[in-house]
Amino acid sequence: MTRLLAELPGSAVASTLTSESILVVPVGAIEHHGPHLPLMTDALIAESVATAAVGRGAEAGLDVWQLPTLAITKSDEHHWAPGTLWITADTLMSVLRDLGRSIAATRAKKVVFLNGHGGNTALLQVANRELRRLYGLQTFSAPAGRVGAGSGSDGEPDEFGMGIHAGYGETSIVMHLRPDLVHESLFERNVPEHLASFSQIGFNGYPVSFGWLSNDFGPSGVVGDPTGSNAVAGAAMFDRSVTLAVEALEEISRFSPRAPSPSSGTS
Amino acid sequence: MTRLLAELPGSAVASTLTSESILVVPVGAIEHHGPHLPLMTDALIAESVATAAVGRGAEAGLDVWQLPTLAITKSDEHHWAPGTLWITADTLMSVLRDLGRSIAATRAKKVVFLNGHGGNTALLQVANRELRRLYGLQTFSAPAGRVGAGSGSDGEPDEFGMGIHAGYGETSIVMHLRPDLVHESLFERNVPEHLASFSQIGFNGYPVSFGWLSNDFGPSGVVGDPTGSNAVAGAAMFDRSVTLAVEALEEISRFSPRAPSPSSGTS
Amino acid sequence: MTRLLAELPGSAVASTLTSESILVVPVGAIEHHGPHLPLMTDALIAESVATAAVGRGAEAGLDVWQLPTLAITKSDEHHWAPGTLWITADTLMSVLRDLGRSIAATRAKKVVFLNGHGGNTALLQVANRELRRLYGLQTFSAPAGRVGAGSGSDGEPDEFGMGIHAGYGETSIVMHLRPDLVHESLFERNVPEHLASFSQIGFNGYPVSFGWLSNDFGPSGVVGDPTGSNAVAGAAMFDRSVTLAVEALEEISRFSPRAPSPSSGTS
Amino acid sequence: MTRLLAELPGSAVASTLTSESILVVPVGAIEHHGPHLPLMTDALIAESVATAAVGRGAEAGLDVWQLPTLAITKSDEHHWAPGTLWITADTLMSVLRDLGRSIAATRAKKVVFLNGHGGNTALLQVANRELRRLYGLQTFSAPAGRVGAGSGSDGEPDEFGMGIHAGYGETSIVMHLRPDLVHESLFERNVPEHLASFSQIGFNGYPVSFGWLSNDFGPSGVVGDPTGSNAVAGAAMFDRSVTLAVEALEEISRFSPRAPSPSSGTS
Amino acid sequence: MTRLLAELPGSAVASTLTSESILVVPVGAIEHHGPHLPLMTDALIAESVATAAVGRGAEAGLDVWQLPTLAITKSDEHHWAPGTLWITADTLMSVLRDLGRSIAATRAKKVVFLNGHGGNTALLQVANRELRRLYGLQTFSAPAGRVGAGSGSDGEPDEFGMGIHAGYGETSIVMHLRPDLVHESLFERNVPEHLASFSQIGFNGYPVSFGWLSNDFGPSGVVGDPTGSNAVAGAAMFDRSVTLAVEALEEISRFSPRAPSPSSGTS
Amino acid sequence: MTRLLAELPGSAVASTLTSESILVVPVGAIEHHGPHLPLMTDALIAESVATAAVGRGAEAGLDVWQLPTLAITKSDEHHWAPGTLWITADTLMSVLRDLGRSIAATRAKKVVFLNGHGGNTALLQVANRELRRLYGLQTFSAPAGRVGAGSGSDGEPDEFGMGIHAGYGETSIVMHLRPDLVHESLFERNVPEHLASFSQIGFNGYPVSFGWLSNDFGPSGVVGDPTGSNAVAGAAMFDRSVTLAVEALEEISRFSPRAPSPSSGTS
Repeated sequence: MTRLLAELPGSAVASTLTSESILVVPVGAIEHHGPHLPLMTDALIAESVATAAVGRGAEAGLDVWQLPTLAITKSDEHHWAPGTLWITADTLMSVLRDLGRSIAATRAKKVVFLNGHGGNTALLQVANRELRRLYGLQTFSAPAGRVGAGSGSDGEPDEFGMGIHAGYGETSIVMHLRPDLVHESLFERNVPEHLASFSQIGFNGYPVSFGWLSNDFGPSGVVGDPTGSNAVAGAAMFDRSVTLAVEALEEISRFSPRAPSPSSGTS
Repeated sequence: MTRLLAELPGSAVASTLTSESILVVPVGAIEHHGPHLPLMTDALIAESVATAAVGRGAEAGLDVWQLPTLAITKSDEHHWAPGTLWITADTLMSVLRDLGRSIAATRAKKVVFLNGHGGNTALLQVANRELRRLYGLQTFSAPAGRVGAGSGSDGEPDEFGMGIHAGYGETSIVMHLRPDLVHESLFERNVPEHLASFSQIGFNGYPVSFGWLSNDFGPSGVVGDPTGSNAVAGAAMFDRSVTLAVEALEEISRFSPRAPSPSSGTS
Repeated sequence: MTRLLAELPGSAVASTLTSESILVVPVGAIEHHGPHLPLMTDALIAESVATAAVGRGAEAGLDVWQLPTLAITKSDEHHWAPGTLWITADTLMSVLRDLGRSIAATRAKKVVFLNGHGGNTALLQVANRELRRLYGLQTFSAPAGRVGAGSGSDGEPDEFGMGIHAGYGETSIVMHLRPDLVHESLFERNVPEHLASFSQIGFNGYPVSFGWLSNDFGPSGVVGDPTGSNAVAGAAMFDRSVTLAVEALEEISRFSPRAPSPSSGTS
Repeated sequence: MTRLLAELPGSAVASTLTSESILVVPVGAIEHHGPHLPLMTDALIAESVATAAVGRGAEAGLDVWQLPTLAITKSDEHHWAPGTLWITADTLMSVLRDLGRSIAATRAKKVVFLNGHGGNTALLQVANRELRRLYGLQTFSAPAGRVGAGSGSDGEPDEFGMGIHAGYGETSIVMHLRPDLVHESLFERNVPEHLASFSQIGFNGYPVSFGWLSNDFGPSGVVGDPTGSNAVAGAAMFDRSVTLAVEALEEISRFSPRAPSPSSGTS
Repeated sequence: MTRLLAELPGSAVASTLTSESILVVPVGAIEHHGPHLPLMTDALIAESVATAAVGRGAEAGLDVWQLPTLAITKSDEHHWAPGTLWITADTLMSVLRDLGRSIAATRAKKVVFLNGHGGNTALLQVANRELRRLYGLQTFSAPAGRVGAGSGSDGEPDEFGMGIHAGYGETSIVMHLRPDLVHESLFERNVPEHLASFSQIGFNGYPVSFGWLSNDFGPSGVVGDPTGSNAVAGAAMFDRSVTLAVEALEEISRFSPRAPSPSSGTS
Repeated sequence: MTRLLAELPGSAVASTLTSESILVVPVGAIEHHGPHLPLMTDALIAESVATAAVGRGAEAGLDVWQLPTLAITKSDEHHWAPGTLWITADTLMSVLRDLGRSIAATRAKKVVFLNGHGGNTALLQVANRELRRLYGLQTFSAPAGRVGAGSGSDGEPDEFGMGIHAGYGETSIVMHLRPDLVHESLFERNVPEHLASFSQIGFNGYPVSFGWLSNDFGPSGVVGDPTGSNAVAGAAMFDRSVTLAVEALEEISRFSPRAPSPSSGTS
């Protein structure tokens, strides 16, 4: 049976979804990923992980459903690169609010944004709260690809933890999913290594965030090192991403911010 | 070679698109289509026609490219039905403006919205002008499915010209494209026949438009008559839709509002 | 007795309007109409037709009322021409929403936008649905001037069906209504005849719409052929417009999307 | 020759307006004015004063032009009363910004909002600055009706200076302009006299402003005392209003915030 | 006990505020005030007057509380001057609406904007009504500094009533409050004296308002005459401002738009 | 010499700021912090850390300036609690955009939002990018308080890493900064301990974010454990926060996304 919500008739939605249903919204991007990866990289990864995770989750008994992928999102950091299709933060917030209101018309209460584009992460967190406040939904956002940012271990290139865009991880996964779309001859490392000398400012996991556009690091549109990327590593990364996504869905299925009542025997 | 723009790397977009390129944006909807058709009906038709037409157009030498489908659009007339995923007129205008600005960063000048959802038609016309004014783009919108609204000829059910939603035409096309998603046992006619007595007010082609929600015509979510729908008729309709879409693309490729200069020999 | 709603005291509105009342909102434009017609052409025609039609409708027993003319509307296609006074699509939507909310505070349920400016047509259709959804109003939009776009028959100039702006029809009507405002010596044909060679793309009635600005067709601001315009033809056109508007009002007075119950004897 | 800008063809606007031209925008309202005055009271007064003042100003050699009346404006304080047609502060700001941008496309630099509705006064001041900043226009706003608020002198009723809405002044002017629209039998005093005991808080001219809705003062929709209103007094008030408007236009014609250069003989 | 609301715990707010409580919101500005006064002049004055007035009011038994100062407001007239920190009219309206909604979640009903920046006055009046309509609050706005605009009496410089920005009054008050922030050597008169020749157009108290930017009057950023400013005069002005603010709070505490019932002994 | 930008005259700003200047914007909140902490907790901490860090930074030779604190920000998760003063995500984005545009009018290029409220973190990251794109500013956001979320080590209460609001850390710092505002008798632990059983979902540092309102965890408004809080620990935490903020400013002063040229000998 399908787990793509949009394949159901509307009448079936009313009877199929329950207050336990989890709706998974893949969130991608269509944006410049250097000379070697397709514009659709983030949308491809988000949708692929979602489809696999929803499938496995459903098999495992989770009441989980996949919604259409939001392919065109907030890629403002790549706005300078022709081919990037992007909407502003304001527009994406409007889309998410409208989507939340649509979902609130069903019986489902839990929504997960499975996000393939780092540039959406913060805004999705803002939206999570907004949708909870406005519509009473329980909202979650999770990364679609669960790959490191390049530490140099295990034969991977050392990206100094900055392999965040079109680097080893993303490139390998796309080589696994759609090898026909990868241009290996154009792999070229572009890591702003001098940033490693800062102890507080950095991309992720640093206390101080900074506002950057991808051409702040040069004209290539890459932040990372695709050299050495390969489909085998990509397959492993993809599988790990799906596994973790399924585990996330399982946690979400039993998640409640308020502790269960004592008689349930928790805490 | 792919004609899906998002499968290209950004770098390739810059060199591949020209001022003659035509970008095709399939515009669908995820909305209640009665008990027998999937929510994704309009998105399915728009994307299917687009893919086929762009493919044939490219073969015929047209410089034509397909963008990702806008699946979730302005389905406000079905807002009452759980499962409908919709954004407001304001949000869709914002999305289209942002998309126009994105396209304006490439060398392409011509954009076609290939629209599978009647509820978007008017707004796309507004957007066409807005994108022309704001970004200098040459903008077009065309219907994806080229089917009648049910005149009762040729063995079709008589829908009094009101088979506009989940009726004979749409149902037959989906039976052709995705028979697994059609629930034939739930076919049920719902035609507001009394409207045929009005000579000025009507759905399309009448001088007087009216604002309606789909439940104004009863609870079924259908406006038309799916009974008798069949995949053979659907295949013919689909093929006709694709043929006309290709012809439209061909016209667009040589369209200019200003007459060519006399030396070119046109009137 | 007056049928201009704004001539009533507020207290009288509360007691005079009923759930059967039809409110007519003339929608015009103040925009460049070439060298020979006044900026107010569309506002003049819309208001004149409305006043005549409401008067005749009231005589015929219709519960119909005229609201103040929206004179300054969405003339974005003439934004380049000094003298055009226009508001954006967003602003006009806001005005219409606010007007809808105002009307919803009365007992009236039916609203007709009698529109003299083609550039508003699509947006009014969007608004019709929005006001129905937001405020439960029954909304309609109708063209004020019911003239052809120039087929060349009956001694009219052949405008190839493109006499849509400051051409034979509009010019003749203004010569009937306000001959003092027409500059006959400046009549000049400007028809983009080469567009007639397109079978799918066109102004109205063609499947493919395109986004145009009026200066896309040259600097004159005319799309049509005013030569040969005359007040006699204009009087006939005006009368026909009023007659059809009255008929539209009569239809609207008995219009309901849901079929009347069987006992009322309708199918 | 007409001084109604909208009666000119667009082509004439380009050649007729100069950087010295003054554009007068009558700003009215369609709002509850108690049981005795029409909804259109403010629009009537604003447009009547504007027409008379522009006419006299033109005769006196001023380069002055009248734009279409903004009839439906910010009547939020009467939103509770059926018949009031109003737009929000946000919408009116959008309309004014759009209008300012339209005007900036002509050669005219000076715009005067001749305002008949007190509820617009503050917002017009905000808009004056916004249009100056955004478009470089020289903007002005002036009251259309120059009447007192009822001091009790000269045989007028004592309105304690609170005759601000549908009181002696407005009622008398409408009796002069459109006696057929005034319902004398329904004159009824409604003055919140207890407010006169406050020395700082009050309607106009007091240091402390307060936010009020017209039904804060009771259900009548009147703030003032129409009893004793008469057309003779109204004629005098109207004439005074026109005279002062003409004087204002004359001042505006020679107004510049920066002092003229010394050689011009500064004061 | 503190009268700074933000010093209370949230739990205490719920129990402390009553329907009689008056919330005072100081509204300042951070904007160019010429070469001799700090950017924070208006915020300093607004907050200082508020603190003193709330303190005295509380001692006198008023149920009055001070909210955090809105320091960055609508200084669009000084947008050209580096250092001015300003938000647009739209943004300030949004802030005020949000603040109104926040206040409506408490039991307090009365809100006073104590405003130190003339450029906010009109917008606060618009907001007063908006917050009353949207949230049922009783809203007031009052000037923080109660100083004249320079009439030339009492040894003051003659500013022709135009000492509205960084002139004698403001400068003297800042010399009293924060002498360390005043640069006396840079005092320079900048009064657009030629405006005194206009009888209708002027800054305050004139019937005709005009839209101005502060550099319309020259590059100094001053509109007034600071020469002769002194702390002694400033202390007197400040004290008068506080006294009048306390009196305003006292009036507000017993203000109601509707007259008290007769048995209460109406005036 | 002052480092509060608003204490400078506008004229001095123009000459004092350089392209190396760093503008520090303290970002606080006025929101429910349980029964024991003041509403202003986050604003107090942000401003206190900023003042201390800017002072020390200036002494250390940094070209650093403090702007007025944004006290009322996005506290939507506490909207249910009377006393919380909050603006929406949309409003805060507007404020930040306006502020960015204001700053772009100076010569300064670097802006740091020193943020005391976790609920602003994600939105500030969105704004960082928006301001970089729109105005070319180099933008940063950093936490004001650098405290853990309660690991139970060093004699601290075990908050299971969830001491994020009004817990041990914040309470101790306020006891150091403003002991008069802390109500020790009302300390009460409220830690949703059952959340510790989730491995992916959590407040910070977990891959899956969730949208929460503070009353999702019970009515207290606390998420953490204030018991055992003390001023000595608070002093140490505050000092550490200031030290790290100064280090962050130092890094920011030499931060550039693009690597310095080779001749500078880096990377």
